[in-house]
Amino acid sequence: MTLSRTQATFAPPVMEARRWLEGATFTPDNPLINVSQAAPVDPPPAPLRAEIARVAKDVPEAHLYGPVLGLSELRAEVASQWSSAYGGQIGADEVAITSGCNQAFCATLSAIAGEGDEIILPTPWYFNHKMWLDMQGIKTVPLATGEILLPDPEAASALITSRTRAIVLVTPNNPGGVEYPAELVRAFFELARAKGIKLIVDETYRDFDLRTEAPHDLFTDPQWGDTLVQLYSFSKAYRLTGHRVGAMVANSAFLAEAEKFLDTVTICPNQLGQYAALWGMRNLSQWLAGERAEILDRRAAIADNMGTLTAQGWKLMGAGAYFAYVEHPFDMGSDELAKRLVQDHHVLCLPGTMFMPENDPAGSRQLRIAFANVDRGEIAVLFDRLAQADYPKQSESPI
Amino acid sequence: MTLSRTQATFAPPVMEARRWLEGATFTPDNPLINVSQAAPVDPPPAPLRAEIARVAKDVPEAHLYGPVLGLSELRAEVASQWSSAYGGQIGADEVAITSGCNQAFCATLSAIAGEGDEIILPTPWYFNHKMWLDMQGIKTVPLATGEILLPDPEAASALITSRTRAIVLVTPNNPGGVEYPAELVRAFFELARAKGIKLIVDETYRDFDLRTEAPHDLFTDPQWGDTLVQLYSFSKAYRLTGHRVGAMVANSAFLAEAEKFLDTVTICPNQLGQYAALWGMRNLSQWLAGERAEILDRRAAIADNMGTLTAQGWKLMGAGAYFAYVEHPFDMGSDELAKRLVQDHHVLCLPGTMFMPENDPAGSRQLRIAFANVDRGEIAVLFDRLAQADYPKQSESPI
Repeated sequence: MTLSRTQATFAPPVMEARRWLEGATFTPDNPLINVSQAAPVDPPPAPLRAEIARVAKDVPEAHLYGPVLGLSELRAEVASQWSSAYGGQIGADEVAITSGCNQAFCATLSAIAGEGDEIILPTPWYFNHKMWLDMQGIKTVPLATGEILLPDPEAASALITSRTRAIVLVTPNNPGGVEYPAELVRAFFELARAKGIKLIVDETYRDFDLRTEAPHDLFTDPQWGDTLVQLYSFSKAYRLTGHRVGAMVANSAFLAEAEKFLDTVTICPNQLGQYAALWGMRNLSQWLAGERAEILDRRAAIADNMGTLTAQGWKLMGAGAYFAYVEHPFDMGSDELAKRLVQDHHVLCLPGTMFMPENDPAGSRQLRIAFANVDRGEIAVLFDRLAQADYPKQSESPI
Repeated sequence: MTLSRTQATFAPPVMEARRWLEGATFTPDNPLINVSQAAPVDPPPAPLRAEIARVAKDVPEAHLYGPVLGLSELRAEVASQWSSAYGGQIGADEVAITSGCNQAFCATLSAIAGEGDEIILPTPWYFNHKMWLDMQGIKTVPLATGEILLPDPEAASALITSRTRAIVLVTPNNPGGVEYPAELVRAFFELARAKGIKLIVDETYRDFDLRTEAPHDLFTDPQWGDTLVQLYSFSKAYRLTGHRVGAMVANSAFLAEAEKFLDTVTICPNQLGQYAALWGMRNLSQWLAGERAEILDRRAAIADNMGTLTAQGWKLMGAGAYFAYVEHPFDMGSDELAKRLVQDHHVLCLPGTMFMPENDPAGSRQLRIAFANVDRGEIAVLFDRLAQADYPKQSESPI
């Protein structure tokens, strides 16, 4: 009996991590610090909530089916803001709105690859990407990024076969927290173009990039549409996680192909969320700048607090987007360590094993700390708790 | 080069039909009658819109990620109302909320079948079902329903192989408009159980069934969960098409498997839509009864207006849910006829070819009329226009 599509993959890691909380008791003076999930825990600002309420009451068509590829005005707004931000020419017909960025990834892959095809995915990877590839019968070819968490185009080139359909980059990276240099992204673009495959760049965390200039120059290439598919999420910037709105930017022929998937799976993105994203893009740039400053301050707080941990043998591998990615010094797999940290130190974070192929030893040395929901003060407490973690240490040098 | 998943299927039929409108001009005194899509064109009632607005403003967590399988209260409400309506025992953990009923179908199939497996689908079928099976590398085994549009369990039994994973029934049927008798649904359930496969029953149109008693007794079987997966949509009953909220009812182990798909594709259903569905279920039963009465009146209007068409050789094959399914008398494929009806008579409906395997001649004799958006007066005009259609007729007897 063949496996069903879902049987070909693992259970959602975030939910597994949530099960580790069962049986643990946390006290008001020593509460759980949850740095497991990459999501804002506050609702959108009041003016945006008021706008959603207004649309719900006064815009009848916001309750009806909309276009499969999304609200025209939102597609045009993304095209316009992107053209300006990336210094290129992006048309409204080269933007599709999706039911969250995960769905944008799924639709993209469905348009690119079939059973037995291959996709190159740098490790550590975003686990939902791996789950979708598993479920679609697509072979994931891992591309190790090593100590610096940056993929190497030459190493990627060596992995390309006649079945390779695309390389996927996530920048700023989840889980690694690193921002890929513009030249690196360009090198991957040239590689993909030369090999006749797609380059998928997931920029879910673009609004929290430390750099103020464009993070890459791919859209300045008049032929970007032949090679590039860019993915985006409105969830983080405007705190719209519960509304499920994302986007994909690709040439219009590619979007027509992806449209089959989007039509069949969800018919259209939910409309109120799209109105919310549109209003946010048009009215919240100042507010978003403040959000970015706060996230960047938390990122700085991570570095500021590493001192004691570094002395104990911990290592900060990457810090950016919503994430710090660290190497721990203990003689214990990270999956075991993550469970112990919940019980012993009231810290919930995800182990590197959740972002790695099963046979890759690097994952067991690493942890992801999603710091977006903990402020500077809580980050200090978090690091105090980690510094108190006292388990047998690895004697040999890190892998 | 292998085909990508989307390349393995056709473009969305509703969008193809919309293209037929290009170049056609409609006048205020002779406007287009659009009976192509199965969707309410009015927004939800004002109290429900007000509730959505209230939640948007006052319920912070409605903007954040919710559980993958949906809002607990909504799952419990469905379980409770279903247990009562179907006379069985359905728990909240046996209900999952999805981003529309299409996604419920996709998640169900992903949990059941893999590459090369087979699914039995009565014809005419709902095209998005066929598209998903194509995209997933699953072989669709058509089960002809003939003149009465009812599938035959014995014929289905003969089609089952070692690769068959499920039989899909849609009742009330889209596109056929027929309500499957309870005994027929039970016979399919027994067949599926005996063969160790799943029975998927899509009841998107259950709220508009002419029958007042339970449409089947499957949930009264204590072992229903071993065999049955039921699908539902909140879009039609509460006019929430733009919110994308559906449901699947299955045993909890099955839902845990489907959860992998739902988590990976959309993380969770959008929250405001779920709050809307919950409020609708709790407060709009009287209003929904009125909606049902109106749809049933339109259905009756279809039968009332058939006289002239019947004399001209047309045949009403089914009328129910949102649909009349008719056989036309012309010596012309239904795909050609549907285009001519737009140009010559300002009527947009979908041809049977869109609901049939390519090689099935029955589809070219049939048309689907989605009557939910046309009232009794408009139905009379629609039928006048169809009666004016004057094309060469088929001389031989209908297939």
